[in-house]
Amino acid sequence: MFGARCLLRALRSCSSAPCPGHKPSAKLSVRDALGAQNASGERVKVQGWIRSVRSQKEVLFLHVNDGSSLESLQVVADSSFDSRELAFGSSVEVQGQLVKSLSKRQNVELKAEKIEVVGNCDAKAFPFKYKERHPLEYLRQYPHLRCRTNVLGSILRVRSEATAAIHSFFKDSGFVHIHTPVITSNDCEGAGELFQVTPSSKIKVPEENFFNVPVFLTVSGQLHLEVMSGAFTQVFTFGPTFRAENSQSRRHLAEFYMVEAEISFLESLQDLMQVMEGLFKTTTMTVLSNCPEDVELCHKFIAPGQKDRLEHMLKNNFLIISYTEAVEILKQASQNFTFTPEWGADLHTEHEKYLVKHCGDTPVFVINYPLALKPFYMRDNEDSPQHTVAAVDLLVPGVGELVGGSLREERYHFLEQRLARSGLTEAYQWSLS
Amino acid sequence: MFGARCLLRALRSCSSAPCPGHKPSAKLSVRDALGAQNASGERVKVQGWIRSVRSQKEVLFLHVNDGSSLESLQVVADSSFDSRELAFGSSVEVQGQLVKSLSKRQNVELKAEKIEVVGNCDAKAFPFKYKERHPLEYLRQYPHLRCRTNVLGSILRVRSEATAAIHSFFKDSGFVHIHTPVITSNDCEGAGELFQVTPSSKIKVPEENFFNVPVFLTVSGQLHLEVMSGAFTQVFTFGPTFRAENSQSRRHLAEFYMVEAEISFLESLQDLMQVMEGLFKTTTMTVLSNCPEDVELCHKFIAPGQKDRLEHMLKNNFLIISYTEAVEILKQASQNFTFTPEWGADLHTEHEKYLVKHCGDTPVFVINYPLALKPFYMRDNEDSPQHTVAAVDLLVPGVGELVGGSLREERYHFLEQRLARSGLTEAYQWSLS
Repeated sequence: MFGARCLLRALRSCSSAPCPGHKPSAKLSVRDALGAQNASGERVKVQGWIRSVRSQKEVLFLHVNDGSSLESLQVVADSSFDSRELAFGSSVEVQGQLVKSLSKRQNVELKAEKIEVVGNCDAKAFPFKYKERHPLEYLRQYPHLRCRTNVLGSILRVRSEATAAIHSFFKDSGFVHIHTPVITSNDCEGAGELFQVTPSSKIKVPEENFFNVPVFLTVSGQLHLEVMSGAFTQVFTFGPTFRAENSQSRRHLAEFYMVEAEISFLESLQDLMQVMEGLFKTTTMTVLSNCPEDVELCHKFIAPGQKDRLEHMLKNNFLIISYTEAVEILKQASQNFTFTPEWGADLHTEHEKYLVKHCGDTPVFVINYPLALKPFYMRDNEDSPQHTVAAVDLLVPGVGELVGGSLREERYHFLEQRLARSGLTEAYQWSLS
Repeated sequence: MFGARCLLRALRSCSSAPCPGHKPSAKLSVRDALGAQNASGERVKVQGWIRSVRSQKEVLFLHVNDGSSLESLQVVADSSFDSRELAFGSSVEVQGQLVKSLSKRQNVELKAEKIEVVGNCDAKAFPFKYKERHPLEYLRQYPHLRCRTNVLGSILRVRSEATAAIHSFFKDSGFVHIHTPVITSNDCEGAGELFQVTPSSKIKVPEENFFNVPVFLTVSGQLHLEVMSGAFTQVFTFGPTFRAENSQSRRHLAEFYMVEAEISFLESLQDLMQVMEGLFKTTTMTVLSNCPEDVELCHKFIAPGQKDRLEHMLKNNFLIISYTEAVEILKQASQNFTFTPEWGADLHTEHEKYLVKHCGDTPVFVINYPLALKPFYMRDNEDSPQHTVAAVDLLVPGVGELVGGSLREERYHFLEQRLARSGLTEAYQWSLS
């Protein structure tokens, strides 16, 4: 399926200057117009939504935004263009000459020769007001319009860039992309609460005859990727994942996107951490370099200081400490924790926060966790009496655990022991029968 | 989450030649090894699965595949390396020198200095046999192993390349990528039968309190993209889509991936068709150029002659005919159709097949369909007495309808009329209240 909007047929022209008879103007995005080097009067056409109108005695200034960048394009028009329809929120098509701006605020501006209002906007009914900064809670009420605000626009552009960067990173590293199934009958490692999927009641087929087994929305593509890693040495997936956790918090979404990867013939946690660090740094650098203004906006208003923190993280190699070292650091901390740090216990958010701060506000890999804390398939380090596994979590300032991974246990007798210890031997034998 | 397999610790070495003491060999994918220019003895390490073993008096030949390409790398070893564990299906790590091959069959080969069996394979229990071509129906029984066959490997590599090419095409064209929601309470245009989503029975929360409304798996992201196109002039999504059609055919999947895009300020179907043709051609060219051997395999064994057909499609501009012309062509056809072609009736698969054949086995855009056949939001062409809308379907040889789209009706009174005619006025007024 493919869609296309046309809003341009019912034009209400408010052109007043005669449009010179020459070849049609090149259509340009605001981003490309703003980035034009040596703008020297070439005729272009720009389409978008009006972000501001300033009417002076002889000149009319408009700012037009089309979502391609945070910055809007300044349109300078003769005051004869002025019209009530040229209002905040209206959509317009402007034709004119791209010229160097005399002001220091922008490099280029568009000298209008023709302005057409494609769709007008009733300023009174429009929920967002010019120059007002609306709280996110207020924007939530207008899901169909909020993407026109600076903050949502920036976040969506950053997400789009990050998505592309993740795909590119894995492709450039030789990974094969796999669409792991969304509807599945497996619960992976029992990672969370499941959503069940059934044909809707309108359908005549009895539910049990549709898939033959109960099916759910995926909580992880790991098992499917593990199968693929028996044929491709490097695979990844980047798809929607679901958890039916009845919790209203920033950390619990019913639906979210997750990157997962499997590498065959991996020899050490070191190699794995290199991929994790590469993914984090490449994606972050791409976003910083392709969306500098969007990042700046977030830096100022959404997550104060975040750009500096990200740039700091990119400068150095991530640190690596063992779980045992992490517990020692926490024990020696002057801070009082709600959960007393102790070898063998999970690291809580308060501990993770302290660790990244202690390490200089830089991402930290914590490796070699107690066997008892981790799933059965993680590789035994055989380091009794401690008894840890080759697992790794990446802790990131301001986020906490961002990535987790492990070497997988490949030794049959170790797996048998672990299954027996978890009381899973019978289930395993049943699965083979 | 992130995963990593380690299969390499429990190595059973069958090295016999002494490994010279020098810096560790560079790890190389089979694809990169095969593509090495002027291989002249550089030491490398290759990991993968054995595809064939040929033991001669003094020399042992192995073919090793790691999923990075259809072609395997030839390993040449002294016969002293021979071992029962070096069998079809085993996974190995080979270190040695990359050299030019004396045979014409390959450019380079790996002169083994060390071969380690990472995981052995019981040839008797392994469901696939050396040099046998297994039917797809047989492979279906082994979903965890079938990706090791040539045909599934090729298809998965092609899919991965096509996915990346689709993302790149839109990114390079200035589109913003949007993750439209998978769980949704809207049925879009009632495109198909729905799957309902409920928290699984284990969860304590009553179902009706989870989302407050009944929710389903998306059948289309169009409505969400239309919202986004009120802020970004070009948006696309490429995600999973679901239909609960109880039908077992190549054309009906419960879960599939779909590309959808919306363009604001679009002026004509011509501009829309340009994007469609660009997407088709760019993606096809990328696959043909990045996966030549995989395409060749499909060309020979899966879809005979398909490569030639694709190359033919890339050579020329796609044709454009109106629905009215299409019906005329069908009426004048010597062929007898099951459904008699008639103005005002849907085009059936048999008609689509005839049309692309008639047009020289090339993709054809059919435009301007009868208003009565299309959804209410498509733009009225005001061409009575025919009364058509600005809709377009792209018919492709061997596939049928591959892409559909339209200009959207933006004129309020037209929309009101269409809603009234569809008996939807009350529903619309209710949605406003």
